[in-house]
Amino acid sequence: MYAAIYSGAGTIRIEAVPRVAPGPGEVQIEVAYTGICGTDLHVYHGEMDARVGDRAILGHEMSGQVAALGAGVAGWSVGERVTVLPVRWCGECPACRAGHRHICLRLRFLGLDAAGSMQSRWTVPADTLVRLPPGVPLPEAALVEPVAVAVHDVRRAGLRPGERALVVGGGPVGLLIAAVAADTGGDVLVVEPNPHRRRVAAGLGLAAVDPAATDVQDLVQDWSSGAGADVAFEVSGVQAGMDTAVEALSARGRLALVAIHTTRRPVDLFRFFWRELTLIGARLYDRDDIERAVELVASRQIPVGSLITRVLPLHRAGEAFASLEAGGAVMKVLIDCQEPGAGSGAW
Amino acid sequence: MYAAIYSGAGTIRIEAVPRVAPGPGEVQIEVAYTGICGTDLHVYHGEMDARVGDRAILGHEMSGQVAALGAGVAGWSVGERVTVLPVRWCGECPACRAGHRHICLRLRFLGLDAAGSMQSRWTVPADTLVRLPPGVPLPEAALVEPVAVAVHDVRRAGLRPGERALVVGGGPVGLLIAAVAADTGGDVLVVEPNPHRRRVAAGLGLAAVDPAATDVQDLVQDWSSGAGADVAFEVSGVQAGMDTAVEALSARGRLALVAIHTTRRPVDLFRFFWRELTLIGARLYDRDDIERAVELVASRQIPVGSLITRVLPLHRAGEAFASLEAGGAVMKVLIDCQEPGAGSGAW
Repeated sequence: MYAAIYSGAGTIRIEAVPRVAPGPGEVQIEVAYTGICGTDLHVYHGEMDARVGDRAILGHEMSGQVAALGAGVAGWSVGERVTVLPVRWCGECPACRAGHRHICLRLRFLGLDAAGSMQSRWTVPADTLVRLPPGVPLPEAALVEPVAVAVHDVRRAGLRPGERALVVGGGPVGLLIAAVAADTGGDVLVVEPNPHRRRVAAGLGLAAVDPAATDVQDLVQDWSSGAGADVAFEVSGVQAGMDTAVEALSARGRLALVAIHTTRRPVDLFRFFWRELTLIGARLYDRDDIERAVELVASRQIPVGSLITRVLPLHRAGEAFASLEAGGAVMKVLIDCQEPGAGSGAW
Repeated sequence: MYAAIYSGAGTIRIEAVPRVAPGPGEVQIEVAYTGICGTDLHVYHGEMDARVGDRAILGHEMSGQVAALGAGVAGWSVGERVTVLPVRWCGECPACRAGHRHICLRLRFLGLDAAGSMQSRWTVPADTLVRLPPGVPLPEAALVEPVAVAVHDVRRAGLRPGERALVVGGGPVGLLIAAVAADTGGDVLVVEPNPHRRRVAAGLGLAAVDPAATDVQDLVQDWSSGAGADVAFEVSGVQAGMDTAVEALSARGRLALVAIHTTRRPVDLFRFFWRELTLIGARLYDRDDIERAVELVASRQIPVGSLITRVLPLHRAGEAFASLEAGGAVMKVLIDCQEPGAGSGAW
């Protein structure tokens, strides 16, 4: 079989690799689709070589079917549709002991710290499996993982029905947060400069504005009758996005910090003091988040299919990365990891 | 009678002023003691002239007795010991309507936006009065207001018994936060470079370390068995203090932001994301906070007397400000606003 292998900055190679037979407690998955996320792009840029090395099989947003069971695996059958909770916690560090295992201080992430799903067969610990209902299309199911991020973020923000939520940044995670927030009963507004992303937002029934064409703060004042937003989600990762989120908040407003900011950002702490704002870091998800995400995707409450811009076969994985790099009219790109003929080994 | 009047940067003048008779719904207080707080020092530096003007009677940390009642005032008697909740909210702005009246968008603060208590008689709306139990010494009672700040901050942080709380900055508010946190059942550590303040902390039974002599992060790691602090209170107002607080926190740790940071501060947002930290702005107090503060002072649970460095009479108010300016072995300075002989009008 084949895998897409990150092989140093800007390089994805397709190589024949051996199937890994499932050991005790493990399951081999026949991978259907794998998405590319922002972290994968950071790896692609060569920014994470210290963590992943210069040769790694990426991929953690995925769907597939159980292909083989290792010794001692109970409760699963070959052919069941699954996705994976791609995190391994130690269970012993202070974060784990305090009940926050998803931010384990020694967290290992499948697809970064161990092989990921950009290959036709992926062998993982059985306790990472998450069952998919029979009716869920497998392309959509590959987006369960980013939906779990959104579920977690909306929960961390404590969003209540009727509250106004500003989502700063309308990439895949931003739009999924907006969709989950709207599904939770929030009154949602997305800020996103890219017109394609705003069109995708509109297709999801979400209001989205261009910060270059609209005075966002004036708009927020009008929208909220002068109060400001109850909640803001910072999903842009840039200084201007952070500033927009802080300035938009009402007294006692909450800012869920979702994006990765790789440098220290000047923050208006006086405003946090004066308005008693709250900044809430939000990272990853736990099993309850991904199980809720499965429900939202399966029920079509979050119609994730409209985020999928294109699907490319595994041997064109490099092109998939490059098309995301190019930006523009692209949202989510999936890699079809299925082998052309079962057992053919042709590619 | 006389008042201490801020008269431009660095200048406090003692002037004869008329007593203000209480109007309908107002009460005239015979002021006993008034403390000087950090905000008063900002005014003294000339930094707040745009708000207070260049002629203002400061003072909002105070104690006294009811001297005269205006028309329609019920429930109060002449001679009752009182302090004042020195805030006036509008009741109509979005913050008030959302139930956060203490951070009213049009808040007026007595002692800044209207005359304060650095005078022998102070006339205020009757609904600002807070009753003091008979046994409370009036010098200690002048510290009820900063204790209310501390009560509010500890509540905003959601401190639970047994949690580790790092207090960064051991001035009056920092030490009162530390004392309230300890009274709440927290395991408290104060970080403060000034040796006099550390001695006062020790007198309150609080552990305090010098950040110039101790590696605070190493100490926090030892103290918390590698977990980090559950809560940090940023009371220093300086970049290094903010950095210390952020770095010290455990996974899901909470940072209560108490100090005023007058410029934007570079903040390690990645750490907020990675450890799912929370930053909580905390400002002022509401009536329930000040009533709890009265209980804590009256019961001696918070022995505020040990924070009082000296008491100077009203005609030496300028010296009181100057001694705080000089720093060093000084914590809280009170101004005795009582007239030497009742009705003498001598000064």
